[in-house]
Amino acid sequence: MSQPSKATAVPLKNVKITDAFWSRYIRLVNEVVLPYQWEVLNDRIPDAEPSHAVKNFRIAAGDEKGEFYGFVFQDTDIAKWLETVAYSLTISPNPELERTADEMIDLIARAQQPDGYLNTYFIIKAPERRWTNLREEHELYTAGHFIEAAVAYFQATGKRKLLDVLCRFVDLIEATFGTEPGKLRGYPGHQEIELALVKLYRATGEERYLRLSQYFLNERGREPFYFDLEYEKRGKTEHWPGHKDLGRTYAQTHLPVREQTTAVGHAVRAVYMYSAMADVARETNDQSMFDACKRLWQNMTTRQMYITGGIGSTSHGEAFTFDYDLPNDTMYTETCASVGLMMFAQRMLLMEEDRRYADVMEQALYNNLLSGMSQDGTRYFYVNPLEVWPEASAKSPIKKHVKPVRQKWYVCACCPPNLARLLTSLGQYMYTVRGDALFVHLYIGGEATVNVAGHSIGITQQTNYPWNGNVKLSLKMEQACQATIGLRIPGWCRTATLAVNGENIALDGSVMPQGYAKVTRTWQDGDMIELNFDMPVEIMQAHPHVRANVGKVAIMRGPVVYCIEEVENGSNLSAICLSQKAKLTATFDENLFGGAVIITGEAKRLDETDWDDVLYRPVSTQFKPITLTAIPYGLWGNRASGEMAVWLRAFNE
Amino acid sequence: MSQPSKATAVPLKNVKITDAFWSRYIRLVNEVVLPYQWEVLNDRIPDAEPSHAVKNFRIAAGDEKGEFYGFVFQDTDIAKWLETVAYSLTISPNPELERTADEMIDLIARAQQPDGYLNTYFIIKAPERRWTNLREEHELYTAGHFIEAAVAYFQATGKRKLLDVLCRFVDLIEATFGTEPGKLRGYPGHQEIELALVKLYRATGEERYLRLSQYFLNERGREPFYFDLEYEKRGKTEHWPGHKDLGRTYAQTHLPVREQTTAVGHAVRAVYMYSAMADVARETNDQSMFDACKRLWQNMTTRQMYITGGIGSTSHGEAFTFDYDLPNDTMYTETCASVGLMMFAQRMLLMEEDRRYADVMEQALYNNLLSGMSQDGTRYFYVNPLEVWPEASAKSPIKKHVKPVRQKWYVCACCPPNLARLLTSLGQYMYTVRGDALFVHLYIGGEATVNVAGHSIGITQQTNYPWNGNVKLSLKMEQACQATIGLRIPGWCRTATLAVNGENIALDGSVMPQGYAKVTRTWQDGDMIELNFDMPVEIMQAHPHVRANVGKVAIMRGPVVYCIEEVENGSNLSAICLSQKAKLTATFDENLFGGAVIITGEAKRLDETDWDDVLYRPVSTQFKPITLTAIPYGLWGNRASGEMAVWLRAFNE
Repeated sequence: MSQPSKATAVPLKNVKITDAFWSRYIRLVNEVVLPYQWEVLNDRIPDAEPSHAVKNFRIAAGDEKGEFYGFVFQDTDIAKWLETVAYSLTISPNPELERTADEMIDLIARAQQPDGYLNTYFIIKAPERRWTNLREEHELYTAGHFIEAAVAYFQATGKRKLLDVLCRFVDLIEATFGTEPGKLRGYPGHQEIELALVKLYRATGEERYLRLSQYFLNERGREPFYFDLEYEKRGKTEHWPGHKDLGRTYAQTHLPVREQTTAVGHAVRAVYMYSAMADVARETNDQSMFDACKRLWQNMTTRQMYITGGIGSTSHGEAFTFDYDLPNDTMYTETCASVGLMMFAQRMLLMEEDRRYADVMEQALYNNLLSGMSQDGTRYFYVNPLEVWPEASAKSPIKKHVKPVRQKWYVCACCPPNLARLLTSLGQYMYTVRGDALFVHLYIGGEATVNVAGHSIGITQQTNYPWNGNVKLSLKMEQACQATIGLRIPGWCRTATLAVNGENIALDGSVMPQGYAKVTRTWQDGDMIELNFDMPVEIMQAHPHVRANVGKVAIMRGPVVYCIEEVENGSNLSAICLSQKAKLTATFDENLFGGAVIITGEAKRLDETDWDDVLYRPVSTQFKPITLTAIPYGLWGNRASGEMAVWLRAFNE
Repeated sequence: MSQPSKATAVPLKNVKITDAFWSRYIRLVNEVVLPYQWEVLNDRIPDAEPSHAVKNFRIAAGDEKGEFYGFVFQDTDIAKWLETVAYSLTISPNPELERTADEMIDLIARAQQPDGYLNTYFIIKAPERRWTNLREEHELYTAGHFIEAAVAYFQATGKRKLLDVLCRFVDLIEATFGTEPGKLRGYPGHQEIELALVKLYRATGEERYLRLSQYFLNERGREPFYFDLEYEKRGKTEHWPGHKDLGRTYAQTHLPVREQTTAVGHAVRAVYMYSAMADVARETNDQSMFDACKRLWQNMTTRQMYITGGIGSTSHGEAFTFDYDLPNDTMYTETCASVGLMMFAQRMLLMEEDRRYADVMEQALYNNLLSGMSQDGTRYFYVNPLEVWPEASAKSPIKKHVKPVRQKWYVCACCPPNLARLLTSLGQYMYTVRGDALFVHLYIGGEATVNVAGHSIGITQQTNYPWNGNVKLSLKMEQACQATIGLRIPGWCRTATLAVNGENIALDGSVMPQGYAKVTRTWQDGDMIELNFDMPVEIMQAHPHVRANVGKVAIMRGPVVYCIEEVENGSNLSAICLSQKAKLTATFDENLFGGAVIITGEAKRLDETDWDDVLYRPVSTQFKPITLTAIPYGLWGNRASGEMAVWLRAFNE
């Protein structure tokens, strides 16, 4: 056996997802979301927020006259769309879509400036302001998304055009920023380019891209504070007046990254940065960087994460607040933040195969992330609340950002394309390989080809996950080989069984020190691994320091968090109580949401009759029995607009 | 017996409060608060927010050079201070204080402009902008507070100087506003002058002041919308950028006042306006105006009022939100709003003696209002929360306005002087007279002289209210007289007894159709009325539509709402559960808060041990028994800084 080497993810092109649950979403992205978003980016959807993103490029390229419209980061909607197209082409070729993307790439290339600069806001509107306001003006962030798109498109199609455009842009960035004399010692206000540069390094082998990423991370949070210096230098102007008041934690510039211990500030920026930190730690064997990643992971996931895998407790700065502050109805829990959380989790898995990472990845995937898009693929949530009272969304100022129904598009449209790129690239989150060991992190039906210790092994996963916990993995190979297969036993699972070719393997602690059942043997063609994860309905509670949830319970089954909606449970969901000992039944309903497991059971509802016009009276609570119906949280809001709640009042008995 | 005529309040000069509970607070205002606030107004308190209020007048009068500092309504702090001085002098003469006030009044008179105009912001800073931005710039609001001060000072001292100053100013206002050609059809952005003008009318007998008040109320909410007209006229400038976005409900300009049915917008503006509406309804026998008052009262007190008598569910616009939206930790519940609520209640009592009004008046007085000031009289709350988690106040953006400790002063310092004027004028809220009937609304120990049907009757109230419900009223008169005495049987009281000269009077429905036990007889000198209000500890619940309180209970005893504090109950108060059937004991503790009834009893606390680094797990709730200590809400925050909660998690059994 070879020595354990660096782990790598099994790439997207080697994985084909075919199961009922996810292939439906991926098909939706290919057939509905990508065309729909292209129409949006071209401003051809009536009543949707205007995008102007393609038009900005046409103006920048000189194809037409006009003014820039949109946010300073409007270009990123194009970048994420292209990245999604790349993943989509990887899993299902589509010449027409590829032609559209090629045309867009041609347009981008024409918009690029002679010195390599690329950003339509600055090209059209403010060429003299280039690189003068890194704190607010997202130039490096936008560059990062284009780098990701370029790498993905190159990997999908072999076409270098966008990659070359971006390499030229990165050359300019490299010439502009750094510690060398004459360079600006700046770094992005919104992190993103750091992880993109690592991708570019891996795709091209050019180490200077990795060093540039390292530079951006190392420089962050150092004194003197760059964002103040550039603010003074440009004459104290602000792009968003008041932005400075968000403080230094907002963009994680309060401390050098290795000294950070608590997840603070804008949640998306945070997880993008942590992802890059894990990337750099891996590529450079940087233990102190990895230690910082572990501390930040620990704080975020054990103190500041919603049960749905959402992060970001406040809309103010779209940010983390503090330990155990997890309000259910005023939070932010942005779709993008869950994408970033999955990215961070995947990178941590490449550092150490510990199921904590994959558990959270799965938790975010099936809940907060899935919630971000409607079942028809044309409506999106930016904020994914755990409790919705539509009247409060309309009338309470602190809940205005909590939309009770998904929207066609957003003025700030980061989430829909981010979700689309995650769904089309989901295959690459499933497997990793380290030396002669293959690790299975996500159970999703389909086929994959992996290279383990020099052997090509075909894997077919069969499962109805997440609706039940039976998973069959059959192996295909030309010749037998010795290898380890590490199978994640999910943290939510209390009783699991594992059999290889019908022979049970005991899952004691020694087999799975970090939650992966590791089977080392000489594998043969036709070998069959069978996993069974017991998946009862469970009534969950939150840590008692989560004040918003004291006295409340939530329903989970496997990785799926459930919620109740007004459509089945009537209005005023807060009046519903669920006993901690309630008998709840899981039933597969093939007619709902294209087939989903629904949970029903006995609960109680506070009797609201006999209340005249009084607000307060001596307590005399009457309950009436009701049958409660809970649906998967990720699928909520696909029927009528109405109330929704994840955390239900507990009836202690 | 004469026909029922208009009711009048027994004036402050006829009432002397001597009981232990309130005389302490009133003495505090006289001895501490008024001198302290005078020092603040003169900027002589270190570390307190600067006021500059006196200095603004000196600059306006030409006594010194300088710039205006403070809010556009900074003058009102002087006005409320003077009004409080007037009440203070009424109840306890103080020549030195009177001399200080006279000097201030001389200064005000010197600052008044030749045409009668008075407002230091506009005199010093923006004479050309007079009356150009009624929506935002508070000129009429400020005038209103000075009118109230002038009337009070005149009634207290007989001195006309300030009254004459204000009459001249009102002449100018009358010449400026109205429906006549050439006048501006404006009305205040912040209501206040409407009720002040009714006071001025009553003090001077000049009907045109009443008509001006009527004009302001009648004009409000009419089309075309005045605030938009003046906005266009002045070139679309704003005093507070974004203020317009608060919308037309913010200052109750969304509908003509008679058509308003729901309490909306800025809570203080609302109750000041409702008070004026009740005043005008009374003075002009305006039934449609009174009907509007009743609708608004009903909505506000049965849909939008906290159990503490606080109003204003959101800090955004310091405003009402919508029915049953009563969050405990993000609300506003401003001290000023409770002052205004008491004012509205008192005016409604003058229209009809219905205990609903007096019950709410008492509820606000003993709870939200009392909470506004520290026991030493030098620290104040602006916002009176029902739940405090100091870390959240520091770190959660939606709770920043919820101060966990009272402050020395506020940049916007409306509340401390407003509270002081309420406390010193409390005597005038106790009794009203209608024809030959005297009504007793508040039970507060002391002496009063009332004129009923031409007879002067002396009343001595003896009570330890609110700590117990025994009240003795002894009567003193020169000759026997036939009269009705209406004694409020508080709505919180389930069992009350009434005896006159030792003889019990049955309190059946016919005796007290609207909550007042009316005793009609020939009263004699020395007659003794004894009331006993049973005052057990009660565990209360909120209407099930108040989602913030479903599954929660609050403790009350008599009119006093209780809360728990961290100092006795430990941190994480949300982990404490109170059984609906808990046995709670009331004990008078003479060492706490200068003597107060404390409530103790058995409760449970969620066991927080055995939680490793996990946020969510299957429910298995363990409780441990604890002894809970609750203190009167109005007295919270007088010891260490820490958590506080009014609504406790209910343990149903």
